[in-house]
Amino acid sequence: MHKKVSSFLEKHGIGVGDTVKLKFKGCEKTGIIMPKDRFSDPETIIIKLSNGYNIGINVHEIESADKIEKSEEIKALSAPSIRPDEKKPKVSIIITGGTISSKIDYRTGGVSGLSKPEEILYNIPELADISYIETRTPFSKMSEDMIYDDWIKIAKTVEKDLNNGFSGSIVAHGTDFLHYTASALSFMLKDFRKPIVLVGSQRSSDRASSDAGMNIICAARIATSDMGETGICMHSSTNDDYCIFIKGTRARKMHTSRRDAFRPVNDLPLAKVWPEGKIEKIKDDIKERSDESAKADTAFEPNIAILKTFPMADPSIIDFYIERGCKGFVVEGSGLGHVPTASKYSWVETIKKHAKDGVPFIVTSQTIYGRVHPSVYTNLRLLFHDAGAISGEDMLTETAFVKLGWVMGHTKDIDEIKSMMMTNIAGELSKRSLPGTYLY
Amino acid sequence: MHKKVSSFLEKHGIGVGDTVKLKFKGCEKTGIIMPKDRFSDPETIIIKLSNGYNIGINVHEIESADKIEKSEEIKALSAPSIRPDEKKPKVSIIITGGTISSKIDYRTGGVSGLSKPEEILYNIPELADISYIETRTPFSKMSEDMIYDDWIKIAKTVEKDLNNGFSGSIVAHGTDFLHYTASALSFMLKDFRKPIVLVGSQRSSDRASSDAGMNIICAARIATSDMGETGICMHSSTNDDYCIFIKGTRARKMHTSRRDAFRPVNDLPLAKVWPEGKIEKIKDDIKERSDESAKADTAFEPNIAILKTFPMADPSIIDFYIERGCKGFVVEGSGLGHVPTASKYSWVETIKKHAKDGVPFIVTSQTIYGRVHPSVYTNLRLLFHDAGAISGEDMLTETAFVKLGWVMGHTKDIDEIKSMMMTNIAGELSKRSLPGTYLY
Repeated sequence: MHKKVSSFLEKHGIGVGDTVKLKFKGCEKTGIIMPKDRFSDPETIIIKLSNGYNIGINVHEIESADKIEKSEEIKALSAPSIRPDEKKPKVSIIITGGTISSKIDYRTGGVSGLSKPEEILYNIPELADISYIETRTPFSKMSEDMIYDDWIKIAKTVEKDLNNGFSGSIVAHGTDFLHYTASALSFMLKDFRKPIVLVGSQRSSDRASSDAGMNIICAARIATSDMGETGICMHSSTNDDYCIFIKGTRARKMHTSRRDAFRPVNDLPLAKVWPEGKIEKIKDDIKERSDESAKADTAFEPNIAILKTFPMADPSIIDFYIERGCKGFVVEGSGLGHVPTASKYSWVETIKKHAKDGVPFIVTSQTIYGRVHPSVYTNLRLLFHDAGAISGEDMLTETAFVKLGWVMGHTKDIDEIKSMMMTNIAGELSKRSLPGTYLY
Repeated sequence: MHKKVSSFLEKHGIGVGDTVKLKFKGCEKTGIIMPKDRFSDPETIIIKLSNGYNIGINVHEIESADKIEKSEEIKALSAPSIRPDEKKPKVSIIITGGTISSKIDYRTGGVSGLSKPEEILYNIPELADISYIETRTPFSKMSEDMIYDDWIKIAKTVEKDLNNGFSGSIVAHGTDFLHYTASALSFMLKDFRKPIVLVGSQRSSDRASSDAGMNIICAARIATSDMGETGICMHSSTNDDYCIFIKGTRARKMHTSRRDAFRPVNDLPLAKVWPEGKIEKIKDDIKERSDESAKADTAFEPNIAILKTFPMADPSIIDFYIERGCKGFVVEGSGLGHVPTASKYSWVETIKKHAKDGVPFIVTSQTIYGRVHPSVYTNLRLLFHDAGAISGEDMLTETAFVKLGWVMGHTKDIDEIKSMMMTNIAGELSKRSLPGTYLY
């Protein structure tokens, strides 16, 4: 706790954990006084509002501070003395940006990126008990800004570490498009049989409700386990009890803010993981760890687009995309894989025209859960049998998008593309889907 | 049961409900013999496969038929003598197409549209006990082919019936885009205080696993109830126990084929409804029925597009849409409402450029569940505060799309649009979301 903040709190008889009403610049906010770490702005008091968000207020701007309720004291972060033990399994943490490596910017009240890798170790000393950590910072981006080139950079970083004696790699990443990167690494690193664990956080690490610590600890448990799988490790529920490890090609962010937002779709989680170290495997086809070295296969065609259909959607956007150099499409259709067929809006006709020229159209469903079925309805048979669209089976739209880019990085032959898209490569599709887990 | 089929079955000692192995045209299929109704092709035997789908095989093509297992007999449909009772509450069933009013086309094996309204009453005689039914057939379309004009036709049909002594209206509809029509009717008929019940079916009515009957019976229970609400009535679970009635602006199809595919998002169901007549209200703000006449408010601007963001998504599609006459957008962003901001892919810059000209951009989240939050992250503040995007709050993308079209049918003033979009009109948004119900 910084001097200016602590003397202000002392003067007002307020301690960390108390509920207070603060007046400042014409505003009045009620919340709980939060502890701070050495990275925080020295003149800012942080309060947690009832909606779960924290705001920072400069002590000089506070006109009055009334204690509403005395609370149990929350322990302020203390700096442990971390003694790295080189005999522990080596794990690399690749810090790419996002909430998990960010903190609140107390000037603006929002969350902004943070580039200091030591903060992760500072905040989560438990990692030193599990593993010998090294950090990598290939770049720092929020996940919504990442492009395929970033996926390749991460893949090559992981490749190097795993071929150099590391037990596993953890990729700390923004959550918005975490599942895209997880898919990309699943295909690019498909020949590795060591744990590659993507981890994010829905609440930043300087918030009391943060999931960052437990998610990273569980990720380290997986990274030192016997599983040779690539996946996402995040909270299983809104309780801080355990995490789930979800196959990288089967995960999707299903809630804007909940800590258990990542759910497996058409699949079960690979395993449950407790921060204390227990791992309960759920799927029975989990690949085992192997120390054999492997190669990253990063060839990628980035000119792919996702097209979501909706009532009155104009199929001429397909022509537009093709003029702009787009090489392939994932069409997020409706229900069992429908697209509009009515004359003015006939997606079937436009798809047919370009499919004839060898442009691949993979059809997935915007229902998210379930399986595209190319022959139940007349309209489906028109699309798949007549127009030449390719069934996305039970693949997620996001996974189909990444897979198509990866497949087209390897071949431009439409028959090969079709065959690869409909063959399971990294656990992304199955002939018989497992039930996914929803949130509620 | 038709003569040719029944004599074939008799010859082979097979009855309805038996499991048989049939050989035909080089194929071999094992399934359960299904009952047929008078609308079926007279020369076709229908078997239900283990994957839940029915196929029809012409008796003349069957080379061999072996009984595998004798089963409990399934009662064949018998034609009841329906005596419409004019003293019962009047309910109109508006048949618009889709699986609920379709059956398997035995020539192709797929499901195709059916235009005969009497089949519904023929198949579901229970409706006559609940209500005095009249049917309307304004058009017949699969839901993925419907346009705003169809929504208006349905709204005007409902308006006429409800202002002419009908207790309620049932709209039988395809499921793929059922939630779009439900949203449209919620806005267009917002001043009505009689039950308007949209109903679909995930399995066609001549399949044993069909949900059509129970869904329509439950819909009739709602249409004769005291609720003055517009919503979707479908199976609550995969058991045939009860249905849920979901607010028309809060429902979404979340599975390609499951009977409980429709889930409320960021909301609880309005009520549970049992086919026997029990109704258990869940929400505490359900509007009560009133007989006052009202007017349909169908002004609509159809030139609206949904744009789903994805990694490397090209923001110049916004320019393309605007050149094509598009008047407004729903941007399905990621997480709390992010769009890509990196230079080459900066959606923020493109949105800012057009928002300045008064084009509305409503931002929702592709996580589906949760709430867009315009100020947590720096990138969000750029989008909402700087570029002028409008927060979709906890609205579904599909609902925001329909609402924007409806709002822009009433005003083109950007401040009025913004104000209306952020105000609750038909239960589509709330300051504090309720937990939705997921499938598993």
